[in-house]
Amino acid sequence: MRADARKNHDHLLAVARVAVTEQGADASLRDIARRAEVGLPTLYRHFPTREALLDALLRSSFDDLAQQATELEGASSPEDALVTWLRECVAVAREYRGVTELMAAAIEDAESALHASCVTMRAAGTRLLTRAQAEGAAQTDIDGTELFALIAALAWLGDQPSFAPRADHLFEVIASAILTDQAGKGIRQGRR
Amino acid sequence: MRADARKNHDHLLAVARVAVTEQGADASLRDIARRAEVGLPTLYRHFPTREALLDALLRSSFDDLAQQATELEGASSPEDALVTWLRECVAVAREYRGVTELMAAAIEDAESALHASCVTMRAAGTRLLTRAQAEGAAQTDIDGTELFALIAALAWLGDQPSFAPRADHLFEVIASAILTDQAGKGIRQGRR
Repeated sequence: MRADARKNHDHLLAVARVAVTEQGADASLRDIARRAEVGLPTLYRHFPTREALLDALLRSSFDDLAQQATELEGASSPEDALVTWLRECVAVAREYRGVTELMAAAIEDAESALHASCVTMRAAGTRLLTRAQAEGAAQTDIDGTELFALIAALAWLGDQPSFAPRADHLFEVIASAILTDQAGKGIRQGRR
Repeated sequence: MRADARKNHDHLLAVARVAVTEQGADASLRDIARRAEVGLPTLYRHFPTREALLDALLRSSFDDLAQQATELEGASSPEDALVTWLRECVAVAREYRGVTELMAAAIEDAESALHASCVTMRAAGTRLLTRAQAEGAAQTDIDGTELFALIAALAWLGDQPSFAPRADHLFEVIASAILTDQAGKGIRQGRR
């Protein structure tokens, strides 16, 4: 991509991120083009479909999450790294309202435009989980796919207006089931 | 309602339950009328809207769940009663594909046709939870609304084809976070 095309691409993505955060995965593409001060044909040249746009947004967020996982692996205790990363994942997934079903479908669907991003995210989580399991900080009966499912479930709960006020406590409850007893008790009692 | 009208009503509900179990919450009303061997106007006389039909189905299922909760209170240990009832709830919610968002919205929306059914179900769960908490079998930092949210999340996970093969284990993981340590360990190790 040429430098000016890359710049337009990144600008469109930044504008789209704000629109999707505000309006959800079905945000108006026309509105995104207008806010980015380009024509709809230009938007479609960069992102031929809504899925392509969402994929680019999610890939960028999930790449950030994978990067964060690597940094946390080097800098934090296995337990802190896992819990901090889980909180970030849920926060990111909640930014994209309505995306949890897409995530759930994409992880097993190699044809999905979102597949690679979801697999990258699951791999990052699996690394943090395995490290915490090796140190006795996480339950050993869970694997990366189940961790990904629990993240999606937490994002889904946060998406439901009835449950959103309980989202922080529900995170603690579910995180306590991922951690071993002692670590899990800490998080339930708000000691983290 | 006259006896023959009640009979038609119950027959339509039974047919609708099968159709919704097979096709989800957006099952064809025309198909339901055909299978019940009545005209579409007759179906609409009993259930003026899709929501009215779903409400009648869910109310009937949730009334059964409330009844089961009462029976379990009398017959089982607090821990067994709670876990058995949670399993039943998730199974029932999973019967109605696509209904988890409706449940989540209805619990806080007094205008929803599903509100009363959801409140009844939450109240039944709260009784079993409180009893288990009093006996030291359930964690005391969870209330009935959070229990309802966790049931909805488990039903949602079971609704996602990617996660459905893990649904039983994810149930155990989340149930272990509702129970106290000793009871929770039992369910995680499949000892129930």
